[in-house]
Amino acid sequence: MKRIAIDMDEVIADIIPKQLTRYNDTFNEALTLKDLHGYKLRHLRPERVEDICNFYREPNFFRDLGVMKDSQEVIQELMGKYEIFITTAAMEYPTSFTAKYEWLKEHFPFLNDLNFVFCGDKSIINADYLIDDNVKHFPNFKGQGILFTSPHNVNETKYVRVNNWQEVRDYFLK
Amino acid sequence: MKRIAIDMDEVIADIIPKQLTRYNDTFNEALTLKDLHGYKLRHLRPERVEDICNFYREPNFFRDLGVMKDSQEVIQELMGKYEIFITTAAMEYPTSFTAKYEWLKEHFPFLNDLNFVFCGDKSIINADYLIDDNVKHFPNFKGQGILFTSPHNVNETKYVRVNNWQEVRDYFLK
Repeated sequence: MKRIAIDMDEVIADIIPKQLTRYNDTFNEALTLKDLHGYKLRHLRPERVEDICNFYREPNFFRDLGVMKDSQEVIQELMGKYEIFITTAAMEYPTSFTAKYEWLKEHFPFLNDLNFVFCGDKSIINADYLIDDNVKHFPNFKGQGILFTSPHNVNETKYVRVNNWQEVRDYFLK
Repeated sequence: MKRIAIDMDEVIADIIPKQLTRYNDTFNEALTLKDLHGYKLRHLRPERVEDICNFYREPNFFRDLGVMKDSQEVIQELMGKYEIFITTAAMEYPTSFTAKYEWLKEHFPFLNDLNFVFCGDKSIINADYLIDDNVKHFPNFKGQGILFTSPHNVNETKYVRVNNWQEVRDYFLK
């Protein structure tokens, strides 16, 4: 059985709405999804990178994120033909461990928690595919990187791209 | 550069003395290291497996463990010739995440925390070697499993064995 590793933030966990609300509320701005076209928030506001990272360090920041549309259904379908692991770069924000674990148990209760991986450098992942929004993980990944579209990565052209979970289904099950 | 994945408990973290103290204090027994020859504590006292697992679920159980003799020095030496990752089956006790992370930062500050991996099923680890006391991780590991001696595994004969960190040094650097 081939194995698919799946990232959390911006792939199954819808972090951007919360990120924008938290940022706009704190700094009295009105940034929208459109402003993030081609950028991460921290690149758009480099003078506030520390404040932005501090949002992610709040123990509950990751606990109440939305679930990306269709991700639950498609992952359940994929489980019939593939081994599924969730691989998140949690070491960047170690205070997020518990929130991320609880979020997964709440929204993806059909996954085996022995298949959750909290890591940093994803070259340690032994899988055939990695679905991720962050291209930095692909060059040293041993399998096929699959770029999940997120506003910050829209200008990347080097990788196989999926725009949503219906396209993930088509890629793996058609 | 070849990559070595290293387990925590009973390999770099000296869990058994605390385990015995905690157990003996709770149940008014006097088990010693000798009693664990060939057994894990939970196999020696199967009627108390839930109580024993509850020790590990205490958020700080893993925070003040001792460091296995010579592990710090030898790992620093190994870093000159190998990539080092710490790979621990933390998903079995999710309440241990923070304690394990802080313990690593305290005792192995020379390691990059992006090279820490909290996982469950270690077949997800992409490394050339895995030093572990638990043989269950070896059959599906893609590289060479190296069994680190611990009382419970003394009767295992199927794997390359190292008895202490001096023997790890000899295996990798001689």
